[in-house]
Amino acid sequence: MKSFLEPESVVLVGVSRRTGPGAYNNLEMLRRFGWEGRAYVVNPSGAEILGERTWRNVEDLPETPELAVISVGREAVPGALAACLQKGTRRAIVISQGFADADERGRALQRELASMANRAGARLLGPNTMGVFNAFAAFSTAFLDLPRPARPFGLSLAAQSGVFQVGPAQFIGPLGKVLDVGNMADVDFVDAIACFEADVETEVIALYMETAARGPELLRAIERASRRKPVVVLKSGRSAAGARAAVSHTGSLAGEDAAFDAAFERAGAVRVRSIPELRSACRGLLAWNPPLAGPRIGVFTATGAAGILAADACADQELTLAPFPEPLGRALASPKMDWYRLQNPADVWPLMMGSGDFVGFFRRTVEHFAADEQVDGMLGIMVCMDSPLHADQDLLAAARAASEANPARKPVALWLYGSGAERLSKAINEARIPGTACFPDPDAALAALRASLLCRDRSRRPPEPAPSPAEPKATLPPGSLVMGPRAERFVEAYGVRVAPSALCTTEADAVEAAERIGFPVVMKIVSDDWAHKSDRGGVEADLRDAAAVRAAFGRLEAAFRRHTPEARLDGILVQRREAGVELLVGFRRDPQFGPVVVLGAGGIHTETLRDAVREIAPVGIERATAMIDRLRIAPLLGGARGRPPADRATIARTVAAVSTLALAHPEVAEIDLNPVMAGPDGCTAVDVRIVRGERSA
Amino acid sequence: MKSFLEPESVVLVGVSRRTGPGAYNNLEMLRRFGWEGRAYVVNPSGAEILGERTWRNVEDLPETPELAVISVGREAVPGALAACLQKGTRRAIVISQGFADADERGRALQRELASMANRAGARLLGPNTMGVFNAFAAFSTAFLDLPRPARPFGLSLAAQSGVFQVGPAQFIGPLGKVLDVGNMADVDFVDAIACFEADVETEVIALYMETAARGPELLRAIERASRRKPVVVLKSGRSAAGARAAVSHTGSLAGEDAAFDAAFERAGAVRVRSIPELRSACRGLLAWNPPLAGPRIGVFTATGAAGILAADACADQELTLAPFPEPLGRALASPKMDWYRLQNPADVWPLMMGSGDFVGFFRRTVEHFAADEQVDGMLGIMVCMDSPLHADQDLLAAARAASEANPARKPVALWLYGSGAERLSKAINEARIPGTACFPDPDAALAALRASLLCRDRSRRPPEPAPSPAEPKATLPPGSLVMGPRAERFVEAYGVRVAPSALCTTEADAVEAAERIGFPVVMKIVSDDWAHKSDRGGVEADLRDAAAVRAAFGRLEAAFRRHTPEARLDGILVQRREAGVELLVGFRRDPQFGPVVVLGAGGIHTETLRDAVREIAPVGIERATAMIDRLRIAPLLGGARGRPPADRATIARTVAAVSTLALAHPEVAEIDLNPVMAGPDGCTAVDVRIVRGERSA
Repeated sequence: MKSFLEPESVVLVGVSRRTGPGAYNNLEMLRRFGWEGRAYVVNPSGAEILGERTWRNVEDLPETPELAVISVGREAVPGALAACLQKGTRRAIVISQGFADADERGRALQRELASMANRAGARLLGPNTMGVFNAFAAFSTAFLDLPRPARPFGLSLAAQSGVFQVGPAQFIGPLGKVLDVGNMADVDFVDAIACFEADVETEVIALYMETAARGPELLRAIERASRRKPVVVLKSGRSAAGARAAVSHTGSLAGEDAAFDAAFERAGAVRVRSIPELRSACRGLLAWNPPLAGPRIGVFTATGAAGILAADACADQELTLAPFPEPLGRALASPKMDWYRLQNPADVWPLMMGSGDFVGFFRRTVEHFAADEQVDGMLGIMVCMDSPLHADQDLLAAARAASEANPARKPVALWLYGSGAERLSKAINEARIPGTACFPDPDAALAALRASLLCRDRSRRPPEPAPSPAEPKATLPPGSLVMGPRAERFVEAYGVRVAPSALCTTEADAVEAAERIGFPVVMKIVSDDWAHKSDRGGVEADLRDAAAVRAAFGRLEAAFRRHTPEARLDGILVQRREAGVELLVGFRRDPQFGPVVVLGAGGIHTETLRDAVREIAPVGIERATAMIDRLRIAPLLGGARGRPPADRATIARTVAAVSTLALAHPEVAEIDLNPVMAGPDGCTAVDVRIVRGERSA
Repeated sequence: MKSFLEPESVVLVGVSRRTGPGAYNNLEMLRRFGWEGRAYVVNPSGAEILGERTWRNVEDLPETPELAVISVGREAVPGALAACLQKGTRRAIVISQGFADADERGRALQRELASMANRAGARLLGPNTMGVFNAFAAFSTAFLDLPRPARPFGLSLAAQSGVFQVGPAQFIGPLGKVLDVGNMADVDFVDAIACFEADVETEVIALYMETAARGPELLRAIERASRRKPVVVLKSGRSAAGARAAVSHTGSLAGEDAAFDAAFERAGAVRVRSIPELRSACRGLLAWNPPLAGPRIGVFTATGAAGILAADACADQELTLAPFPEPLGRALASPKMDWYRLQNPADVWPLMMGSGDFVGFFRRTVEHFAADEQVDGMLGIMVCMDSPLHADQDLLAAARAASEANPARKPVALWLYGSGAERLSKAINEARIPGTACFPDPDAALAALRASLLCRDRSRRPPEPAPSPAEPKATLPPGSLVMGPRAERFVEAYGVRVAPSALCTTEADAVEAAERIGFPVVMKIVSDDWAHKSDRGGVEADLRDAAAVRAAFGRLEAAFRRHTPEARLDGILVQRREAGVELLVGFRRDPQFGPVVVLGAGGIHTETLRDAVREIAPVGIERATAMIDRLRIAPLLGGARGRPPADRATIARTVAAVSTLALAHPEVAEIDLNPVMAGPDGCTAVDVRIVRGERSA
């Protein structure tokens, strides 16, 4: 990948003869960016461009360029690539659009490019890409005039877009390197992450993703990288509308959003949801090393109002206000204001204003917060006016002094306000004061602290055991949708307990079965045509004696004939009525990440609560147990309102069994156990649905 | 209030002799702000300050100043105020701290100030305030050197803080006027809102609130104002930690946050939750007149990635992507890229770059989106580089041309990126191009569009009927906590249906009652000491015959004696078992806003779901019906999963009955009907708890 990011020499194929305003000439942009390496320009006219000699053909070049950058019309790209490969070049960037991002012809062309590169043992970045950006090596393939930072930050991005290097300040923050993977005909996120993991100039890895490819490899790459460096991901297409836009933008399908959530968390990346969150997280992750070690924040402020707003934002980010360090109170106390009490958030302004020592006051505040073992990090909110009358408010000096008084480098986030705030925030961030970062609002500051804490936790998680291949213990019955007793026997083979039942075809059978199983029972229509039984009167609940069973049998048969006169009735299921909290246990096979195991609130509350947690398989007992605690309805399982607590161990075993089944049966697309009744004596599935094949819900 | 915001003359009491850096001299700041009116300075030394004459005493002044600004130590404030009142001044701002924001002594001093002003027929702003800021009249009482905008915007703020005028760009945006109400000893939000409602220079009213006072008057003031001008509120202290900080900051109690939500919505204000949301909303509300008329947004972008992110942000804000206007597709099509398809979000860059006409292309895009009747507003995401090579990207000219091509002034939000983005965003916003506003990210842009739509809806809501005083229909039984049959009879007087029941003291009574009521029944312990019955085995459910009732009676008596041997058992309640969806209906009397009526998920899901909607009383049938639809569990009431739908009319009547009861009985602090069983034949309360007095949950 180094040949992409800092080539010795490059050939530009498809450079316009026009230069200057509105020409988008990428040779011109490369030179303005500061690159001083050898650039060969291929142009059929052979005329000079910007005073540089051009060549009519790649084969005429005096050497083999390490990298080719191709930006001709889509039909001309295969020919241009062939010429470069012929010349011996083994790295190519295809800037041009109109491939898998466009239509069938484009998809065919893209397959051709990938195949050509592959046969030649070459690597291809794109098509439909802005290419690379490397502020360290002063190399950029953009057709826009990008400013180059004099001292780049160690923030490296892999993205399905080139817009981040065009507007770094608006999209992400101070970028050092970018690989725009475009349509990912060859080079993709897996390659880019491995590259940045190994790169010594990269401190923080960011990903902008619209679609994923090579799911398992992607997760392994993130897994490895996130133990060494923070990995932050912005995955777009969260909303249905967003997902639609993604399909046409990148020419491949967007995965289900929840699967991405589960996958990123499992792999150790921190997912952000928006541009402001991405900017905040990157700023903090670059500045804070060591990262935030716990959730307890000390807040000091020049305005009480912002302290209250910061406390709100703290709670929003699941951070807490640290206990106020009493030594700080003593250090700042003023005899003239003996009625004034500091707490956390600490409104230090009235004391600071009277002290006549802005810088020293600021330093002492950070010093005492940082020295307190109950404080993990700080948020400082300070006024900063561009006026000679406020020359004492020297925030740059104050931040430097405070950093020296904080030898453990506990993270300090700053939010400045006032007429000098923008200028000083930029200056402090550019100054790279250890442990210090400025943010545009308290919400951004606390979101960054939260991201830092998450990255720390994920870098320290125990290593995952390698998933052991699961052996099938049963054969999936035929049919695209498997329900009823056949489905029940199948899941029982994996240790799932199912409510005792019998499939009956006569009223007498049903009564006999109910007496054998024990009252009360429920009865349900079993037919492939009745997937959603309860909506049409296909379930009779709480039948307490033989007479009730007989009456129910008649009603169910009548409902079946009325609603589906043509359908085949397999029978009426008589099943023991189970008590407990209704859960849902199941999985859905995601096209990118494989089985996504789900535990949630079940029964009639499945849709209204949407209380579900997801994990990528394999899910063992320990992980399954943790899933229980993440449910909103967890208190119900703990024995709320006088009920005995549910048996957590068997819930966890049921979740783990579904995971094992998912890995052993690639032919199963989805399983729903819903409801699973969780009570003190274990949990029991009362309805089982299995979807065969590649379909997803 | 005009005397506060633009006085003819002002006396400053407590100006320091020090001037220059670090002196925080408010005479110096007033002059630098540009005020040219008459300012008298009172200083005991009698020395000149900044070359201006000073007076030793207020009584020596040659005229009666219209306004006094007092910033002496707290113990000296009453004397200073007395001198000003004596001189005939009838408006005073007390900047000083250490009053209700501090301690008991401070509270006493504050009461004294309020009483002095009241006796003199004067008005007092503060104490603990930065005072006023009026960019139109070049008047500011800040002790900081604030820049004054040359052409102020019509954004007026009433706040319990002065920090907004110190850092407008960071906190809120381009402020025109501010009243910092401080501790609200006299002038409060009600006065400030009325002032801004009437003020011709005010276009948008913003409130920053930590605590409320005079709740009903406040809501009426917002009600009136929000029909004429957008009213946006940032209420802090949302989190428990935030609420704690609020108590000490302002010296008065924070109301329950949910009551504020209900109150602001009822009154017609739009509540924002954070500083970034406040900035976004104010920017949009200032720019867009008419406001956004519907949720359908057209998005055009110079980068596909941002289009997908904007679609996500659209969904987050409950806005939708408008259908793509086909005439726009024809207007922008390029024969050279016949494979390129536009949709919404419209990635126009590939066509725009080739067109050579950035400004015209931008204009045509807005023109066609705006002309489509299915488009309510637009978000444009555009690149903007500070480089002579991109001089064609003249966004200021483009935005002007687009505004002229959008005669209906449908709202246009812009997000610019690239090296010129910050400069151009500021320039476009300062240029006040009709219907056009720039934002720092797509989330901010869409949050602003959402706020505009909400403000429009609220300005058009039908007038509220005046609440009719409710006459009591029953007498509240004695006791601080009323439960059981006495509570049931009380709520029945207001039309609440309660499950048939009987309070029994012997086993034989219980069996007889159950047979009269009809099986199945439930039985419950009734005792003032057993408020949370089910946690201790105080409820027996689903008793189906006399033997079951007898056995249950014994178990309940034993449980009562075991847990509370000393307590008095009123009896055992035998009650019909009701079926249906479990709801909670009740109210809590908020100290600021009166009865807050609640409808929510009830029973065991009350706490886990936290699915509740709140309205300030009075709540009539129409409003109560709308509350049902806002519940997350609403689909269950509509008849999900084969159940018959619940009777919405009786749910609404029950909610309205609770509202009537709340207004008729100020001695009731709280009522919980939980659960209320809602079925097809109406809804029935099965447990009633009434709390007397001012206590709140």
